Amino acid sequence: MNDAHRLPPRRSIGWQDGNVLYIDQRLLPNEEHVVCTDDWRVMVEAIKTLAVRGAPLIGISAAYMVTLAAYHVPQGIDRREYVAKAMVEIASARPTAINLLWAVGKMREVFEEAGNDPMLADRLLEEALSIHNDDAYRCEQIGANGLEILPDDCNILTVCNTGFLATGGDGTAAAIFYKAKDTGKNIHVFAPETRPLLQGARLTVWEMTRASIPVTLFVDSAAAGLVRDGKVNVCIIGADRIAANGDMANKIGSLQLALICKHYHVPYYVAAPDSTIDRNCPDGKHIPIEQRGGSEILVNGKMSETAYRGNIEAKILEIFNPAFDIVPSELISGIITDKGIFQFPFQFDKLEGC
Amino acid sequence: MNDAHRLPPRRSIGWQDGNVLYIDQRLLPNEEHVVCTDDWRVMVEAIKTLAVRGAPLIGISAAYMVTLAAYHVPQGIDRREYVAKAMVEIASARPTAINLLWAVGKMREVFEEAGNDPMLADRLLEEALSIHNDDAYRCEQIGANGLEILPDDCNILTVCNTGFLATGGDGTAAAIFYKAKDTGKNIHVFAPETRPLLQGARLTVWEMTRASIPVTLFVDSAAAGLVRDGKVNVCIIGADRIAANGDMANKIGSLQLALICKHYHVPYYVAAPDSTIDRNCPDGKHIPIEQRGGSEILVNGKMSETAYRGNIEAKILEIFNPAFDIVPSELISGIITDKGIFQFPFQFDKLEGC
Repeated sequence: MNDAHRLPPRRSIGWQDGNVLYIDQRLLPNEEHVVCTDDWRVMVEAIKTLAVRGAPLIGISAAYMVTLAAYHVPQGIDRREYVAKAMVEIASARPTAINLLWAVGKMREVFEEAGNDPMLADRLLEEALSIHNDDAYRCEQIGANGLEILPDDCNILTVCNTGFLATGGDGTAAAIFYKAKDTGKNIHVFAPETRPLLQGARLTVWEMTRASIPVTLFVDSAAAGLVRDGKVNVCIIGADRIAANGDMANKIGSLQLALICKHYHVPYYVAAPDSTIDRNCPDGKHIPIEQRGGSEILVNGKMSETAYRGNIEAKILEIFNPAFDIVPSELISGIITDKGIFQFPFQFDKLEGC
Repeated sequence: MNDAHRLPPRRSIGWQDGNVLYIDQRLLPNEEHVVCTDDWRVMVEAIKTLAVRGAPLIGISAAYMVTLAAYHVPQGIDRREYVAKAMVEIASARPTAINLLWAVGKMREVFEEAGNDPMLADRLLEEALSIHNDDAYRCEQIGANGLEILPDDCNILTVCNTGFLATGGDGTAAAIFYKAKDTGKNIHVFAPETRPLLQGARLTVWEMTRASIPVTLFVDSAAAGLVRDGKVNVCIIGADRIAANGDMANKIGSLQLALICKHYHVPYYVAAPDSTIDRNCPDGKHIPIEQRGGSEILVNGKMSETAYRGNIEAKILEIFNPAFDIVPSELISGIITDKGIFQFPFQFDKLEGC
């Protein structure tokens, strides 16, 4: 990083002397800028604007945000009341990823146990660091478990970004790519650009090229031809939430990749930590899908919003911008977690706790 | 048009006093700029850079370009030699659309017949105007024929741009949308943005809103969810070339739409003039697919090319940017032409000449 603030290699977030450091991912790949903040509200905004994104990273960020709130209480305000209110706001920063709710839930348990302990902030920090370390360890395990399904020469289709920019460690799907490279497999990653925010083109390409993993970039709608032509052996993508029946939510575009893979008989795997499985959510219909503003689509296409405003107001033009797809379990070959690989039909209790 | 040069309503190209007028489509929707040129090489460049695009419009442009060459011969150069050389260069401006070759072929016939007739340029102009008028008439017929398959309330999925910006008249697929609107049907168009050059977001949205046809814009990878949720009754798209067995080439993204429609049992129609059918091309494997430069993907994503150049040179990063998909005939419900509707399995001789 060519900035005053530095993070360890292959890390996109960290705690340092009462502050959180994180990479502003909106500026990649053109600029590598590390933000240093002691203000949890700055991080809420970072999550809403996707400066910080990726389901596991959002969870870790939430834990650090609660910790920041506990360390930096405005004068004259009760610490517990302040942290309690902050937790409510942090939990609603984005609706789809289960990791955010899960991490706030873990922090809330510590908060409740601590009662009036004057060391509340220290106890919360300990929990946040533990959540971060555990996530890095889970990435390691996902990488190791995923190796099982990869031949020694392998072309892998993915979507969005699932590496260290999306997690507290090496990533979810990308942890498998790193592990494959490290163990001498000959892999090639096929990364769709991932409109509207181009996490594939901006982030995955940046991560893969830094690790000297060969990568091919293309527009999202070109994936079908690549799969038809046998350029891809397997598809491995991340997940933002997995329901109890195996239906899962992931970046918009995940459903079309599943349909393409099904048609051309290419296996379609999901890689995610076990904590992404929401056992209280029966199926995909119960996963809330975030609808984002239409300006994301217009602005990145260099289209003037004023050119379209009148038509939007007149309801002649509507912009539909869901952040996620729901993929039904029957289109998923397997789910690679830190606990092991689940195969369709999914029964998540079988492997739990192994 | 707020420019000194003006075209008739719903026309994107025209001949005026020895010049060709055309809309520079790269500037839409932010700016409506009509170019006036007497230089056929300017138009070759316009076609290569997609300032002028759409298979039928490229054909009409080619006819006008040959005419321009015949009217404006540099001093001291033989007219016939000059026009002959121009025709070779014009024919190779873009490789996929059959219309370009077809139109140059028609002009060549007139050129050969004319011999040393001093009225060569006038005869070529007459042919070019006839090609343009015929195309406008064919658009009318496609629109009328397409009405057959549309219920009175209909949500239509399309891709790229197929209206008057793509043809010499009202369009191919879009001619059906206009005709449906004009005949009182209640339609709604679903237009994917169509990366990398955003013809859907920039051109189709502009055309539809001008005609007060309600339109929904979304990223290309969001189509699967719309179709799954029953938001779409039918898919109607254009074609750049149709082979004798019904396989066809159209904008990248056409194959994934076909797979999505097949999975969710939504009919998938192609609308194109009969001249798009290349009866000498046995199947999709024989249609050449244009590969375009990677900078189209990077630049529109506001990514610095320098950030990626080193990796491209080191062959760690490859950018794959095909302009077209091949869709196999078995995924196509029917092909709507000016001569009538062909149903799968396609036997194009059956309707020819009706």
